[in-house]
Amino acid sequence: MNLDYFFKPRAVAVIGASHNPGKIGYEILNNFVNGGYKGKVYPINPKTEPIFNLKVYPSIKKVKDRVDLAVIAVKADIVAKVLKECVDKKVKAVIIISSGFSESGEEGKKLEEKLKRIIKNKNIRVIGPNVIGVYDSHTKVDTLFLSLEKLKRPKEGGISFISQSGAVGSTILDILAEEGIGISKFVSYGNALDVNEVDLIKYLAKDHSTRIIAVYLEGIKSSGKEFLRTVKEVSKIKPIVFLKAGKSLRGIKAAASHTGSLAGSARIFSSALRQARALEASDWEEFFDACKILEMQPIPKGKDVIIITNGGGFGVLATDEAEKLGLELKDIPNDLKEKFKDLFPNYVSFNNPLDLTGDSTKERYKIALENCLKVYSGAIVIALFQVPTLDESLVEVIISMKKFKKPIVCCAAGGEYTKKLSKKLEDEGIPVFSSPERAMRAYNFLVKRMEFLR
Amino acid sequence: MNLDYFFKPRAVAVIGASHNPGKIGYEILNNFVNGGYKGKVYPINPKTEPIFNLKVYPSIKKVKDRVDLAVIAVKADIVAKVLKECVDKKVKAVIIISSGFSESGEEGKKLEEKLKRIIKNKNIRVIGPNVIGVYDSHTKVDTLFLSLEKLKRPKEGGISFISQSGAVGSTILDILAEEGIGISKFVSYGNALDVNEVDLIKYLAKDHSTRIIAVYLEGIKSSGKEFLRTVKEVSKIKPIVFLKAGKSLRGIKAAASHTGSLAGSARIFSSALRQARALEASDWEEFFDACKILEMQPIPKGKDVIIITNGGGFGVLATDEAEKLGLELKDIPNDLKEKFKDLFPNYVSFNNPLDLTGDSTKERYKIALENCLKVYSGAIVIALFQVPTLDESLVEVIISMKKFKKPIVCCAAGGEYTKKLSKKLEDEGIPVFSSPERAMRAYNFLVKRMEFLR
Repeated sequence: MNLDYFFKPRAVAVIGASHNPGKIGYEILNNFVNGGYKGKVYPINPKTEPIFNLKVYPSIKKVKDRVDLAVIAVKADIVAKVLKECVDKKVKAVIIISSGFSESGEEGKKLEEKLKRIIKNKNIRVIGPNVIGVYDSHTKVDTLFLSLEKLKRPKEGGISFISQSGAVGSTILDILAEEGIGISKFVSYGNALDVNEVDLIKYLAKDHSTRIIAVYLEGIKSSGKEFLRTVKEVSKIKPIVFLKAGKSLRGIKAAASHTGSLAGSARIFSSALRQARALEASDWEEFFDACKILEMQPIPKGKDVIIITNGGGFGVLATDEAEKLGLELKDIPNDLKEKFKDLFPNYVSFNNPLDLTGDSTKERYKIALENCLKVYSGAIVIALFQVPTLDESLVEVIISMKKFKKPIVCCAAGGEYTKKLSKKLEDEGIPVFSSPERAMRAYNFLVKRMEFLR
Repeated sequence: MNLDYFFKPRAVAVIGASHNPGKIGYEILNNFVNGGYKGKVYPINPKTEPIFNLKVYPSIKKVKDRVDLAVIAVKADIVAKVLKECVDKKVKAVIIISSGFSESGEEGKKLEEKLKRIIKNKNIRVIGPNVIGVYDSHTKVDTLFLSLEKLKRPKEGGISFISQSGAVGSTILDILAEEGIGISKFVSYGNALDVNEVDLIKYLAKDHSTRIIAVYLEGIKSSGKEFLRTVKEVSKIKPIVFLKAGKSLRGIKAAASHTGSLAGSARIFSSALRQARALEASDWEEFFDACKILEMQPIPKGKDVIIITNGGGFGVLATDEAEKLGLELKDIPNDLKEKFKDLFPNYVSFNNPLDLTGDSTKERYKIALENCLKVYSGAIVIALFQVPTLDESLVEVIISMKKFKKPIVCCAAGGEYTKKLSKKLEDEGIPVFSSPERAMRAYNFLVKRMEFLR
C-alpha cells in the first residue's frame, strides 16, 4: 500500500495527546496544531478536557470523520489495544512512537509480535515502534517530540533522510537547519515492525521532491537480497548515501539492544553497497558532509579537479587527501600557464594545487577560477579570509562562478569572521567545509556518484 | 643562543613599519603598540613621519638604545641590507616576515643563502623568512599581520604551537580563540634558515608555561637523527603532537614550492614518530582535536573507558570507533549491574555503551557517572540535549564529575541550543565534540599518551 498517507494525510489523530508541556504527546500535538500542518487534527486521550482549544476524544473510535494517519504515543502495554482500534477505524497509516518492544528484551519481543498479528492482512501500514517518526518539510507532518527551541527544522530541499535511530536523525536535522540546508522528508523507522528501509527507499525513489536519499542503519530489516536489488535499482536514478553502524563486535551487540537489529559483517556490507552503486560514509561527520554536498553541487563530468588556495599548507593537506582518494590533480595545461605568466606575480607557481600565495587578492582568485573552470571538471577553493588582502567581496567572486555549472567546494577555517563569510557562501549554494581534508572527502562523493552513473 | 629574546624582548624594532592600515608593516606595529606589549617599540621606515605618535627611525642603526628583537617586513631584495644592519646593531633576535626566498625558486634560494652568510658566526638568531612569526599570549609579542577583527588571539593556556605554515597555524589560533582554549606560544617558522623545529621543541621543553607542544610540518629542516632524538627526549616530559603534510607524491611537490621543504616517506616518518613516543594526527581536524583534549583533560590510568549515552545510535557509532582504535570497553562489573537494577527503569540494559535511553534525565546521568567513574579510567558522555527530559542542568552534573580527576569527554551534536550548552561545558574545562567518532579519536590521544609514558 502507498506510503503517501504518512506524508500527506488529510486528517491526523494523536493518540496519547497530552495536556502537559514537555510530554511527548503534548509536543507532537503542538507540532500539528502550531507547526503549519493544514489538515484536521484529532487529539485522543481518556481525559477529554480540550487541548489547544481542540475537542479531545476518549478513543479514535469516537472520531466520526475519516482519519488517514494515527500517531501513537502511549505506554508500550496499551499500544496493542489502540492499534486494534486504528485497524477497526480503517486508519491508513500509523506511527508508533512508543518504545519498550523488541529493542528491550524478550517481553518486548512478544509485545511486538502481537502488534504484527493485529495488522496482518489489514489495509494499514505501520512505522515504528521505538521511533521519533516523520517530518515532512512540505506538508509539515511533524511527529518529532523535540521542541522547536531545542531542535530546529530544516527548510524545504532535496534530501530525504531515513534513519533507524531517532537521535542520529534528529541531530542531523538540527545541523542541516542551522546551516540552511533543506530536506524533503525525514523518517525514523526504528524497529521496523512493518515499514522498513526497502519500503521507504522505493517510495522515495518515486517522490518528486526527493533528489538524494540518505540512510542511517544498524541492521537490515528486509531480506538482504531484496535490499540490495532495491538499492541497485534506485541508485540508477538517485544517489543513496549510507551510514552503517554496528560494524564492530561490540557495536553489533549495542545495535541489538538499540533497535533490535542483527548487524552483519561490515566488509561484506560495504562491498555489496559498492556493487549496488550506492555511496557509503565512514562516519557521522562524513555522512552529513556527503548529504550537504550532494544537495548543493552538481555531479562533475570527470575526476580531474583543480585546488586553488591562498594558504600553502592547506593546499598541501588538500593535495595529500586528494591523492589518497584517487582524485586527478592534473597539471595546468601549458597554454594556460603561459597566459597566467602575464596575469600573476612572478612568485606564483602554476602547479595543481595552484597556490595564489598569502597576499592573494580577489582578482587573482577570479582569474584563476575563470580560466581553470574552463579546463577542469571542478574546483576546490581554499580561502583563508583572515589575510589583509581579502575581504567579503571574494564571496561574490566565488558565487559568480556558478555560471560554469561545475562543482565548486570551499574550504575556510577560522572563527567568527570566517564563519560569517562561510554562511554567505552557503546561503548562495556554495558548500564550505572547515578543513581541507573534509572538503576533499566531500568532493569525492560527487566523483564517486559520477563513476557509478557511468 | 637562548630563544628568549623572541618571546620576552624588552625592546622591539619593526623594520618596514607602515603608515597604511592593511599593510603588513602597519598591522605588526599596531599589534605591538595597541595589543598589550609592555616593552619599547621602534618603528623603522625611510619615511619618518610618526606612526601611532611614535618617532620613526630611518634605520635601526639610528636607534640609540638596545634592541632585543627586530621584525623585518620589507621586500625580499632589501632584507639582506636590513639584516646586516641588525647584526651591526647587535640585535639578539630577528623575525623575517618577508617571502620570496627558497620557497620561490632559484633566485630566492640565492637570496636566502646570502642571509645565511650574513648571520654566520654572529650572536643573532633568525626565525623565517616566509612566516607570520610569533605570538606570545603572556608578553603579547604579536607579529601576526592578521587584524584582530579577522583573526582572534587565544587566551593564556598550555598549548605551544609551532608551524611551518602560517595559514595552518593562524586558522588554528582563530578557532582555539573562538572555543576559549588557551595557548602559551605560537611560532610560524617557515623556511627555517636558522631557527628550526628542533631549536623550538628544545626551547619549549624547558618553557614552564608550555604543557603541550603541537607541530605542523611539511619537511624536517634539521637533521633527521637530531630531530628524532629531540622528539624522543622531550616526549618523556611533555606530549608532542604532529601534523605532517606532504605525504603524497604531489603533496611533496606542493610542499617544496610552499616552504622549500623536502618531504619524505610518510610511512617511515610515522613509524619513527611512534618510536620516539610522539603523537601524530591524521588530518587538520584531528590535530586541532588532539591539542584541545590534551589541554583540557588529564591522562587516564588505563585503556578502559565507559560510554554513556541517551542516543542509542550515537552509542553504536562511538562503540564501533572505540573498537577500531583498540580502546577497552570493558563490561560493567556485576555488582554495579546489581546496584543499577534498583536505580534505573527496567528498559535500561547495563552494557558498555550504557544507553540511558531517549527519556534519560540528568539524574540517570548522575547515577551512571558517579558509579562508573569509580570503576573506569575515563568516560565518554554522549548528551543529545534536544530531548524533552534534559535541559541546561545536565551541564552542572557533568561538570561536577571533575572531582574524580579522570578524563571526561563529551559528544553533543546539534544547532544553536546544543552549541550554547556545549560552550558552557567547554568554559568549565569539559571538551565537547560534535560527532561520536571525533570524541573517541580525541580520547584516544589521551590513551596513546598514557601508553607512551609507561
